[in-house]
Amino acid sequence: MNSKYKISKYKNDKLNNVEDYISIEEPLEINLKYKEGKDWKKENLSITMRTPGDDENLSIGFLYNEQIITDINWIEKIESYGENNGQYDFKNKILITLNNSDNVNIAQVKRNFLMNSSCGVCGKTSLDALETLKQDKPKYPTNKINKNIIIKSPEILRENQTQFSITGGIHASGLFSNDGNLIAVKEDVGRHNALDKLIGETLQKKLLKENDQFITCSGRLNFELVQKALINNIGLMIGVGAPTSLAIDLANRFDMTLVGFVKQDSFNIYSNSQRVEIN
Amino acid sequence: MNSKYKISKYKNDKLNNVEDYISIEEPLEINLKYKEGKDWKKENLSITMRTPGDDENLSIGFLYNEQIITDINWIEKIESYGENNGQYDFKNKILITLNNSDNVNIAQVKRNFLMNSSCGVCGKTSLDALETLKQDKPKYPTNKINKNIIIKSPEILRENQTQFSITGGIHASGLFSNDGNLIAVKEDVGRHNALDKLIGETLQKKLLKENDQFITCSGRLNFELVQKALINNIGLMIGVGAPTSLAIDLANRFDMTLVGFVKQDSFNIYSNSQRVEIN
Repeated sequence: MNSKYKISKYKNDKLNNVEDYISIEEPLEINLKYKEGKDWKKENLSITMRTPGDDENLSIGFLYNEQIITDINWIEKIESYGENNGQYDFKNKILITLNNSDNVNIAQVKRNFLMNSSCGVCGKTSLDALETLKQDKPKYPTNKINKNIIIKSPEILRENQTQFSITGGIHASGLFSNDGNLIAVKEDVGRHNALDKLIGETLQKKLLKENDQFITCSGRLNFELVQKALINNIGLMIGVGAPTSLAIDLANRFDMTLVGFVKQDSFNIYSNSQRVEIN
Repeated sequence: MNSKYKISKYKNDKLNNVEDYISIEEPLEINLKYKEGKDWKKENLSITMRTPGDDENLSIGFLYNEQIITDINWIEKIESYGENNGQYDFKNKILITLNNSDNVNIAQVKRNFLMNSSCGVCGKTSLDALETLKQDKPKYPTNKINKNIIIKSPEILRENQTQFSITGGIHASGLFSNDGNLIAVKEDVGRHNALDKLIGETLQKKLLKENDQFITCSGRLNFELVQKALINNIGLMIGVGAPTSLAIDLANRFDMTLVGFVKQDSFNIYSNSQRVEIN
């Protein structure tokens, strides 16, 4: 499932406003209804950021793969509900009712999920929290960033990754000054961890200067990465790959400039394009 | 941080045993010690799968990016401890003691983390659970899979992705019969979701045949993806990108054949290579 977004494409020294298709990322809340003794109980199991479509299959696969159920015949019924979300016409909640709750240990399930976080920060709770936090919108700088700095930053990031050339399988996040100098770079198998490491170090060393820096990431840009950048009032974020719909929505909401698909001679700007200087 | 693994490289119609560097993926448990009234409390905040190194920065960045703390001066001290993990010489637990707990709302924090799951299934809890589940090791088939089927499967997966060609930013998982026919394919912005969707559908349609199928994924292979395949007794898993150390360890433990970096004329086999037929 995808959605059309108005974006600015830089290519052949020109910036063109075009429409492009973006993969949708939206939260799905998975709820479980089960019997404990004689009583019916309902638990919120998870909110996952997913591409809408196949929500029933996703929920069944999730319950089975997590071994919350070990037989799909335990599922009595699956209902989709909830308000339609954002601009899209779909339900964002699933309620699964079990006909056999004998082996469902909710305490254990909850323990597992509590243990199981820190990636894919998501859901309306986070979104609401972020809204609250950002009520006083940061005043993002209006100074321009030149196109050459954008194009060079993934190359500089890659050159300064110590692990990628060795293993070929690791993500990186780099903090750059607005004139294109690399301030710090961190690597991890998890994109979110690389960014957490980067922020941890730059906070400790007091290297963060909100109005004069941007962040470049090695992969795709999702909700979580943009959220982490916003928390630190970073006004420009660059990804080598594609952003998700929610990453763009979030960037738009807080006037962040979001750039993706950076190649040798081209890139896409998904929000607040006036900060990028082409000539 | 990386580690050397013995792998089998297929290239120019030959299989060579070589050593290769693999990005390490290992769980880190982040614990928080804080004051509630007069009492000190300790909470397990998260287990994240990370590449070891920079654990302190990761923990600080995590606390700040999640806004559990809003000032890093609230951190009194950070201690690394816990047993050394697996074959590696590092600690796998972090304890952060706060000197200002006034604004730390643990109930809210826990609520957020409960809401925040389904990706990055991880940690010792999961590993232990998996061990228990798999005490009766599945008898993986000994029938061979031809190299050509391995090389073609990512191409077939890509051809059958409806979204990738449109957005360029979405993952896929496909279930294949051992003779190379695609049975089902699912897409999602999250790798884990694509696999959950695939398993959900194939469970519902009763398409899963443990001994006669394999799964191919569009990206890198991590612990979580291998775990989900093992839950369903899939004995061969193929990734277009690199596996992590823990993905290989897990595959080895259950005699799964793990293949990565599949290209037009080459691939790497990370475990149980005898199932792959080269000639």
